[in-house]
This record gives sequence, structure tokens and C-alpha cells, in this order.
Amino acid sequence: MDVSLGTVFLSEAFGTGMLTLLGGGVVANVLLAKSKGLGGGTLMINFGWGLAVFAGVIVAFNSGAHLNPAVTLGILTSGADHYAANVPVSVGATFTYFAGQLIGAIIGSIFMYLAYKKHFDATEDKGVKLGVFSTGPEIRSYTWNLVTEIIATFVLVIVILGFNHQGETGGLAAVGALPVAFLVVGIGASLGGPTGYAINPARDLGPRIAHAILPIKGKGSSDWGYAWVPVVGPIIGGVLAGVLSPVLLPVIGA
Amino acid sequence: MDVSLGTVFLSEAFGTGMLTLLGGGVVANVLLAKSKGLGGGTLMINFGWGLAVFAGVIVAFNSGAHLNPAVTLGILTSGADHYAANVPVSVGATFTYFAGQLIGAIIGSIFMYLAYKKHFDATEDKGVKLGVFSTGPEIRSYTWNLVTEIIATFVLVIVILGFNHQGETGGLAAVGALPVAFLVVGIGASLGGPTGYAINPARDLGPRIAHAILPIKGKGSSDWGYAWVPVVGPIIGGVLAGVLSPVLLPVIGA
Amino acid sequence: MDVSLGTVFLSEAFGTGMLTLLGGGVVANVLLAKSKGLGGGTLMINFGWGLAVFAGVIVAFNSGAHLNPAVTLGILTSGADHYAANVPVSVGATFTYFAGQLIGAIIGSIFMYLAYKKHFDATEDKGVKLGVFSTGPEIRSYTWNLVTEIIATFVLVIVILGFNHQGETGGLAAVGALPVAFLVVGIGASLGGPTGYAINPARDLGPRIAHAILPIKGKGSSDWGYAWVPVVGPIIGGVLAGVLSPVLLPVIGA
Amino acid sequence: MDVSLGTVFLSEAFGTGMLTLLGGGVVANVLLAKSKGLGGGTLMINFGWGLAVFAGVIVAFNSGAHLNPAVTLGILTSGADHYAANVPVSVGATFTYFAGQLIGAIIGSIFMYLAYKKHFDATEDKGVKLGVFSTGPEIRSYTWNLVTEIIATFVLVIVILGFNHQGETGGLAAVGALPVAFLVVGIGASLGGPTGYAINPARDLGPRIAHAILPIKGKGSSDWGYAWVPVVGPIIGGVLAGVLSPVLLPVIGA
Repeated sequence: MDVSLGTVFLSEAFGTGMLTLLGGGVVANVLLAKSKGLGGGTLMINFGWGLAVFAGVIVAFNSGAHLNPAVTLGILTSGADHYAANVPVSVGATFTYFAGQLIGAIIGSIFMYLAYKKHFDATEDKGVKLGVFSTGPEIRSYTWNLVTEIIATFVLVIVILGFNHQGETGGLAAVGALPVAFLVVGIGASLGGPTGYAINPARDLGPRIAHAILPIKGKGSSDWGYAWVPVVGPIIGGVLAGVLSPVLLPVIGA
Repeated sequence: MDVSLGTVFLSEAFGTGMLTLLGGGVVANVLLAKSKGLGGGTLMINFGWGLAVFAGVIVAFNSGAHLNPAVTLGILTSGADHYAANVPVSVGATFTYFAGQLIGAIIGSIFMYLAYKKHFDATEDKGVKLGVFSTGPEIRSYTWNLVTEIIATFVLVIVILGFNHQGETGGLAAVGALPVAFLVVGIGASLGGPTGYAINPARDLGPRIAHAILPIKGKGSSDWGYAWVPVVGPIIGGVLAGVLSPVLLPVIGA
Repeated sequence: MDVSLGTVFLSEAFGTGMLTLLGGGVVANVLLAKSKGLGGGTLMINFGWGLAVFAGVIVAFNSGAHLNPAVTLGILTSGADHYAANVPVSVGATFTYFAGQLIGAIIGSIFMYLAYKKHFDATEDKGVKLGVFSTGPEIRSYTWNLVTEIIATFVLVIVILGFNHQGETGGLAAVGALPVAFLVVGIGASLGGPTGYAINPARDLGPRIAHAILPIKGKGSSDWGYAWVPVVGPIIGGVLAGVLSPVLLPVIGA
Repeated sequence: MDVSLGTVFLSEAFGTGMLTLLGGGVVANVLLAKSKGLGGGTLMINFGWGLAVFAGVIVAFNSGAHLNPAVTLGILTSGADHYAANVPVSVGATFTYFAGQLIGAIIGSIFMYLAYKKHFDATEDKGVKLGVFSTGPEIRSYTWNLVTEIIATFVLVIVILGFNHQGETGGLAAVGALPVAFLVVGIGASLGGPTGYAINPARDLGPRIAHAILPIKGKGSSDWGYAWVPVVGPIIGGVLAGVLSPVLLPVIGA
């Protein structure tokens, strides 16, 4: 029996919320004033984000755990006819995934803010506060920042599709939560240097919206000028991976 | 055949003792004077605690390895009728889990103290000595500390229930020791910044009792004023996860 | 049905390209100016390289994922008759593996350069720029550097053959992507100190060629004087592992 | 068909040699002069040792991969009748395991020395050179150092026996290489602070013999006064775990 689109919405929203709660949380732990993890380093952030995906995948099993519009688009453009075991591809399903991902990402960030409320209050640096929510480049260059996000998201989606070619079609749930967590640790460690690896439009835009609407003490700009890069880059990277997957990952007859 | 409650008690006590022996141990390694791991950092503490859970789960297979009253309460309030494959839910079983967890946590801490005896002797700072046993907040605010513990424990229990919805009902043993270890690494990295992630009433109260009764050289207060937060917060978080699990993790008919 | 040599070439090229993209990437993240991972440390580089292998193995399933001429030579000299489930050993297959690995390694490095373009521009040190592409010894001694590379590659290939003795013959794909990733993390942590663990002729020579041909701002020498060590050492180590595997890893009749 | 004792010897020697090659290697990488991993930290050493066990287990599958006299003694005293699937318990088998483990540990350390030859030459500190081979306490107290080694080895062996109670009897191979690797990472992080976690008589005595006989430039004492602690402590811990395992890990009838 097919899963209802309401269940898909709830599943994606809950999983993506888990992602931004834990993913934003590790950055808060390493960067915010008086936090126990202050100065914990880049590898800790990489592991925190990878394990955020891990937890998100576990709770979003009903929808196959895409948690990322770039993954949804990659599966769609790869020619698959199902988004998950019980979810056929359709226009309605596609937009249900997107909506769940964006709304979940906003809500997850709000809970992250609540968990670190006193540490946001204690932090002076406006840029650090935004950096806990959304990504920003170390060297601002829209062209090259876009290139980095395209390459990193291409890696994410093509490897997920590589897993799927070896088993069940679907999202991150078909890969297994632990392998996909390690994949995200690896992408963060290897390709996160220039832009902070959004590699997911919902993961960046949702928290940026949360940053804009939350009453964070002494907050600064939400940097909307950069906001399109971590949306457009991952979309291009995910679609490229989907379109090229029949060539790069050919299925060989037995 | 059902497992006897005596076996459940022993299993939970041994597993939770393993948890506080290894979990307290990694904090001792990173914080106590002249230890080889001094200054090992937050990520090392996160991995140490995660792998403490790992070892505890392996030895507590007979009871399904709850090791945490919040997990027991989460399973109970989720509507499950078994605490583990051979342990039906009952009032007696519930209190047997609690008793094993608390007593095991005390005993494990005592062995941790013995393993690091000379390093406790060599450490001056009273707060560091207590911090090896029990959690404390970086910014004291009972309300917000409680919020952080509720959110972090909710994540722990809902993800465990998410695993269970995909397989056998039970505690951490049904999840598998390695996945639950990584989950705890992730929660520590992401949500441990404000309060040190007790996320388990027994893990915090048991070692605090051990700290109070052990003849630790130059020890200070056991900070009983804060002791209720890492008990009440995890209970609320675990019950919320259990109660909401039928909504957040619906089981879809085939 | 046997996989065509064209598919083998594509699979090895794509997998080895993934390897040098992500493997070079983590070094770039830790070493290049203004990168978010600057100073992230050796363990982060070890995990990054291990997870680069992980991603490479996933996308190279059609050829069994050798990704390394030393692995191909180890399987060949171990007496196996298949390079992967659907790839019989032959002279043509052997050179197809080599060609795919080298060309893929060059292309992967080019994408790594593009992902970190602005950070290469911002970095002054010529040695650091080369170090992101290829390995170099901390104490230059061709004899002892060769010894280190032989030992480290012997470990890599004999453990892979050890896995294979317990299951399907083949390359890294037969081992499973996650175990082989952890093996590479371990070899890096344990034997990477003197030379930076090339343990793979294609992984070192391909990026060195990329370094030579790319228009990197302010680049220095590609250090061709050392280039033979990370080619010859891994070849010797891989062949030794293959030749000794029947003695060291005997198959016991049931 | 039973595996011959010659095969058991070879398997244990090769696996334990892999252990001391990679385990000594990571300490060399973090501590020796001019090594790339210099200052890499305690967590890196913990991971390196865990993954050294991982590699050792893979290549020692024929003997069930004990790699440690304390594990052999723990299995023996637990009442098991097999050391591995094809190796019945006998006096001859017991001493074959011990001999393979000790001789392998010596040989592995020699290869570790060769891999880091130039860095031993470049290191002044005599204590650091010995520390790469064998363990030593941070605070010398034979009584308390012994307590620490007993507790840590007890944890190692009881968890391995806990795995075995859930599946096949045997050594580390029955556990699976990756879980046992993580167990060793955890014990190192949690209980390695006071003595450096020998938790294995062969792992400490073998390399100490290698240190004594190798022509290491400017080496100092092999500290034979301490050498009995990491032999006797692990033996006591392993036997305690074996003897108590029927009580602590009861097998419940179905």
C-alpha cells in the first residue's frame, strides 16, 4: 500500500528537523560562548553533522529519508519511478518532499536555538550566531562558491545513487543510516573548507528563515545576498548527478 | 521463556555499571591531573561516552539493555507490551529496571574511581573531580538547563523508538550496539554544550551518590541543588518521546 | 555476463577520481589559507582519506573497486583468476585497470583544485600547494621512504586479501566500503608519519601530473625527483602481499 | 576438520604482529620527532590502536584471532571447549596461542621500527622511544597501576565474552573486526589515562623485548622493573572475566 502524502510530509519534516537540530547544535557547541565544546574543532563539526543525518534518517523511514531537495531531484532525474518503496514519483510527491524538508528544517533550528538559548545570549559575535544556523563562505566569490557547492552536492547524490544501484531504490534510508552518515562526515572533511558544505537547500534556507524570525539577542543580518548560492548550487549538483548517473553508474546485465 | 526479574536486575546493573565506568573514565582521562589523555578534547569525550554505551549494551543483552530510566519510560509510554524479547511490561519489571540502573551506575563509578585513584589524588580542582562523576551546566539556569536536557533526551529516545519501529521491540539491544553508540556520540557533540548531556537519570544520580560516599581526597560539594535537573529533564524528554511516538513514527500497513 | 573493459575503465576512473577529489580535498581543507578546516589536524586527514576510499568504492562497484595499481597487482600475484565477480584476469584487463586508475586520479585532482580554487590563490607556500596533491617525506631518504611505503602498502593489500579469503574474490568492493575505509584510516594514523602514505601509485602520480599541468597561481616544483618512491614502493608492497598471501593466509579445508 | 597447531601459531603470530606494527606505529606517528602526526593527540592514538586490532583480526581468521593471552585465558576459564570454530581447547593449543602471540608481537615491533627508522634517529628523548614500544604509567604505583590494568582488561574480555554469548564461541574474530576495534578505541579513551592500556601481556612484553634487542640509536632502559605489571594485570583481569562470565552473562533457556 502506498504511503499517504501526509505521512511523507510528516516523515520528511521530522527527519529534516532532526538534521538541523543536531547539525546546528554541533556548530553551536563548538562556536558559542561558554559552551563545553568551545574550540572542539572541525572534525567534531564533521562528525556532528554526519550523525545528525544518521538520526534524521532513522526517524524518516516512512518516506525513505531524502531530507534534502537535491536528493529528491537527483532521484527524480535519475529516472527512478519511486521516491521510496511505497512512494511513486509524482508532481504532488515531489512538492510534498520539498515542503516537508523546508518546514522541518525551520522547526529543527528553533529547537536548536532553545537548547542553546543561554549561549546565544552570551555570544557577542553576530557572524558566529548566523554561522550556527546557515553556511557562509570564507572567501566570498559567488562563482567559485557555487562551483564548490555543485561539486560537493554532486558527490553526495551520486554516491547515494551508487548505493541505490546496488540495492533498493529510494533515498538515504535505502543506503542505510550509518553509511550515509559516514559519507556526510567525509564530504564535510574534504569539501567543506570553502563554503561550509550546505549541500542541501533546505538545510541552509530553513535555518536562515529561523534566524530571521527568531528573537535572538543582538543578532545581525541573515545575509540574504548569499542565500541563493547554497540553494542553487546543490540543486545543480543534485540534478547533474541524477542526469549523469545512467552513464557513470551503468547497470550491467547478469 | 520469560527472563526472571533477577536476571533483568543483574543485566541492567552490569550494563549501566559498564556505562558509568567507561563514561566517567573518559572524562577522568581528559580532565584529571597527569592523565595521558589530559586535554584530549570534547570529541574524545563524545566518542568515549558513545563507546561506553556500546560496551554496556553488549553485556546487558538479557534485559534488552535499557541502561536508562528515560528509555524504560519511553518504551512504556509508547504502548509497547514488552521491554525486551523475553520481558513483558509490568510494574515489577519497571521498578526492577530502575533499581538495576541506579545501583549499577553507583558501582560502575566506584570502579572508575579505583582505576583513576592516583589521578584523583593528584588533582586539586574540586569542580573537576565532581565533573568526572556527574554533569553540571556551564551557565546555571534551571529552566534552560531543563529545556536542554528535555530536548536531548527526547532525541535519544525517539531515535531508539524509530529503530524499534523498523525491527524488534526492546531497548538499546534491539537497535544494535554500534548504531546506538554513534547516536550517543552525535547527541553529545550536538546537544552536550550547555549541560554535558546527562540524558539519563541513573547515569547522573548514581555517580553523584558515589561521589558523595567515596573517600575522595580533597573533594568538594556533590552539588545536590542541581541534581534534580538531570533526573527530571530526561524523564520528561523520554516520556514525551514515548507519548508522541505513535504520531511521529506511524506504522504503515503493508 | 562479463563486464566490458570499457565499463571497467569507466568504473575505475570514476572511483579513483572520487578518491583523489575527496582525499586531496581534506588535505586542502586542513592546509590551505582561509579554509574552514585550517589546522584541523592529522586525525581529520586520516578520516578524510579513509572516507574518500569509502565513496570511491561505492561508485566503482562494476569493476570491484581496485582504485589502486598495487591492489590490482596484489590480486594478480595472489593467484586469483578474477579481478572482480564479472572480470576475469587478463593482460588487457590489467592494463585497463591501470589506465582507469591513473586517468581518474588526474581528473579527480582537477575537480579538487576547482573546489578550492580561491584558497589555492590565497596560499603562499609552494610546498603546501604541492602537498595537497601528492605525498612527500618529512625526512628525505629514498631508501627508508621506500621501506615505509612498502610496509604500509603490504599491510593494505594483505588485509584486503585477508577479507577476500573470507568471502568473494575481488577488490575493495568485496571487502565492503566501510571496513576498507576504516582500514585506510588506520594505516594513515599508524604508518603515515614518515611519507604521508601514498600506498597507491595512481593516487600519487595522477595528482602530481595534475599539479604539473594545472595553471595554479604561484606554484612551485612538482618534485619529480621523489615521484618514483610512491610508485615503486607500493608496487613492491602490493606484489609482496600477493605472493606471500598463500603462505600467510592459508585456506583451510573444511 | 581441525586447524593444525602450526596454522594456529602462524595465524596468531601474523595477527599480533599486525597489532604491534600498527599500534606502535600510531604512537610513533604522534610522538617521534619530525613525524607528520606529531601532536596528533590522544584520540588519534585511541583510533590507531583500535584499528590495529581491526587489521590484526582480519588476517588471523584461521585461529579465531585471540591476539592476546588474556583473551585466550578468558575463553579458557569461561568454560568454553573451543578456542575457535576449528580449534578445540587443549594444553598444546593454549601454549601455541601464547607462543604465536609473543613472537608475533616482537616481529611486528621490528617492522614498526623499520617504518619509522629515521624518526627514531631524529628523536632525542629516551622515554619517548620506549613509549612507542611499551606502556608505562604516568604516576608510578605498582598497586594502583595493577588495579587499572585489571579493570581495563576485565572490560575487554567480558565484553568479548558478551559478544560470544550472543553467537559463535571464539576470539575476536567471532565478535567481528569492526565492533572489537571500536571496543578497543573505547577502552583506550576511557581507561588508558593512568597506564596507557596494555590490556594484553604479549602487546607489552613483545615490543619491550624488541626494544631491548634492536640497535635503536641513543635508546635508554627498557624499564624491566615495570614489565611485570602489564603482564600480571591483564592475566588477572582476563581470568576474572572468564571465571565470572557464567554469573554475569547467564545464558537464558528459550
